[in-house]
Amino acid sequence: IKDLNALGANVSVLLDSVDQARSINKFCEENDCSISALVEIDCDGNRGGLKPNDPLLIQVAKTLDSGQGRFLGVLAHAGGSYSCFDEASLREAAQNEVNQVRLAVSNLSKRDISCRVVSICSTPTAYSYENLDGITEVRAGVYTFFDLVMAGIGVCDKTDIASSVVTTVIGHNKDKGWLIIDAGWMALSSDRGTAKQPQDCGYGLVANTDSQIIDGLQVIKANQEHGIIGSALPGTINFDDFPIGLKIHILPNHACATSAMHRRYHVFDKVNQTYESWVRIQGW
Amino acid sequence: IKDLNALGANVSVLLDSVDQARSINKFCEENDCSISALVEIDCDGNRGGLKPNDPLLIQVAKTLDSGQGRFLGVLAHAGGSYSCFDEASLREAAQNEVNQVRLAVSNLSKRDISCRVVSICSTPTAYSYENLDGITEVRAGVYTFFDLVMAGIGVCDKTDIASSVVTTVIGHNKDKGWLIIDAGWMALSSDRGTAKQPQDCGYGLVANTDSQIIDGLQVIKANQEHGIIGSALPGTINFDDFPIGLKIHILPNHACATSAMHRRYHVFDKVNQTYESWVRIQGW
Repeated sequence: IKDLNALGANVSVLLDSVDQARSINKFCEENDCSISALVEIDCDGNRGGLKPNDPLLIQVAKTLDSGQGRFLGVLAHAGGSYSCFDEASLREAAQNEVNQVRLAVSNLSKRDISCRVVSICSTPTAYSYENLDGITEVRAGVYTFFDLVMAGIGVCDKTDIASSVVTTVIGHNKDKGWLIIDAGWMALSSDRGTAKQPQDCGYGLVANTDSQIIDGLQVIKANQEHGIIGSALPGTINFDDFPIGLKIHILPNHACATSAMHRRYHVFDKVNQTYESWVRIQGW
Repeated sequence: IKDLNALGANVSVLLDSVDQARSINKFCEENDCSISALVEIDCDGNRGGLKPNDPLLIQVAKTLDSGQGRFLGVLAHAGGSYSCFDEASLREAAQNEVNQVRLAVSNLSKRDISCRVVSICSTPTAYSYENLDGITEVRAGVYTFFDLVMAGIGVCDKTDIASSVVTTVIGHNKDKGWLIIDAGWMALSSDRGTAKQPQDCGYGLVANTDSQIIDGLQVIKANQEHGIIGSALPGTINFDDFPIGLKIHILPNHACATSAMHRRYHVFDKVNQTYESWVRIQGW
C-alpha cells in the first residue's frame, strides 16, 4: 500500500479493532509512511465491524490518530438487504444503514473526532435511500451489470441484466427433456443465490441472441463443463428450436461470481454498434 | 483440433448423436483431415450419452466410419456415484458402469464394429472396480487432490486431502463466535458439494499450518472476499488461539471448483523439502 500510494494511488484500508490500528501505526513508523484507515460499522450483524455505540470505535480512531496511521472515517455495508423482497423492507434496510453510520459519526463527533469519509451501500439499498445528508460516498457493485438475485429482490428487471454467458447447445436428452450446453459451473459459477428467493432460477435463466428471455427454461444442473437446461413447463422444449450448435445466453444468478470465472468481458454496444474486449482484474 | 493433431497432439472428441457424427465427417472432408470420436454411454441417467442398447449407438459408429471421421470407442462417467455413501453402493455403481459399457461394446461387436478405446470412471467408482476385463482406460480427476466431498462419500480420509487455500484471520466477532478470514467464495468457490452429505462441511473445514484439522470449525458463510468461520461446538473458539494475522488452511469441498478460482498452485513436497509454483490451465 505504501508503494502504491507513493505511485499516486490513494489506497486506504478497512479495520474494526484496536490491534489492527496498532499494526497500521507500527507499519507506518517502520516504513516511514502514513496509511489512512476506515472503520467498518456493523449495521445489521451480517459480517464484521463495530456497532456504532461500541466504545471501541472511539478507541480505534484515537489509536490511529495518535500514531502514524490516519483515521479517515466510517464504512458500512447493509448485507442484510439481500434478504429483502419488497420495497418497504428495502427502504427500512436503507434507512437503518444511514441511521447506524450517522450514529457512529455522532458518537465520534462528541469526542471531537471527525469523519472525512462516511461511506455506505449495498446494491439492494442503493435505490432506496431517502435522505443522504452527512453521507459522503455511496458504493454499489453489482448494479453495474445486475443479475437474477437483484431481479429477485426487486431492484431491477430481468431485462436490465447486462451480462450473460454465451454457450452452445451440444446435446439433446429427449427422454428427460434436457438441452445440454457447454457451460457448467466452470463458466457459470456454483452460485445459487436465487435458491432461497421466491423465484429460484437454478444456475441461470436462458435468453436468445436477441436478449429475449425464454419462458420456463433454466439451467437446472451444472456439472464441471456441462450445464443441463430443463423446462419448468412440462413438454415445452421444442428441440427443433434448439438445434445442436445453437448459441444461447445464460443470465447469471450473481454477476460477480459468474464474471469471476472468466478472463475477459466481450462488450457490445448495440446503440453505437461497437465491440470491445476488456481484460478482467483477477485475484481477490 | 485439426491443427492440434497436425502438431502431434492426439485430440479426439466425444459425441452422442448422428447429427454430430455427420458434422465431424463434413468438417473432416472440408478440412482434409480425420478426427477420432468416442461415443458417450449413459450408464446412470446423470447427463448425456446413449443407452447401451440404443440402436442409435450403431448408427453413430457407422456414420463416423462411413465418412472421414473415425469411430474410436465408447466412454462413460458414473456421475450417479456421487450420491453413494457406503462401500456396497460404490461397488454397485462401479459394477454398473463396467456392465453398461461392456454391453455397448458387445452390441457394437455384433455389428462388427470394434472399440479401440473403452473408457470409464468417476473418482468415487475408481476404487471399487472388481474386474476391468475389456476396459482400456480408467479416468479419474479429483483423486489427484481429493476433497471433502470425496471424504464424505468414503473414498478417502480427510487427512488425504492434498490441496487447501491458505488464508489469514482478519477479524474476530466475539459476540457471534466468528473468526473472519480473507477467503470468501472468490477464493473457495461457492461449491456446497457437501450440503446434501451426512456431514455438511459448509464452505470448507479448517486446518492449521501443520495440516491438523481443527475439530468443530468450518467456514459457515462466504461473502465475496470474506469468509466466516464458526464452530459447531458452542463456545469452543478460543480467540487467543486465532490472533489476527494468523495463517490457516481451508480444505475444499470440491477441489476442482476451488482450484478454478486460482491461477497457480503452490506445491510443497514435505518429504524432499521442495517448493514449486505451477501455473493452472484456465478456461473450460
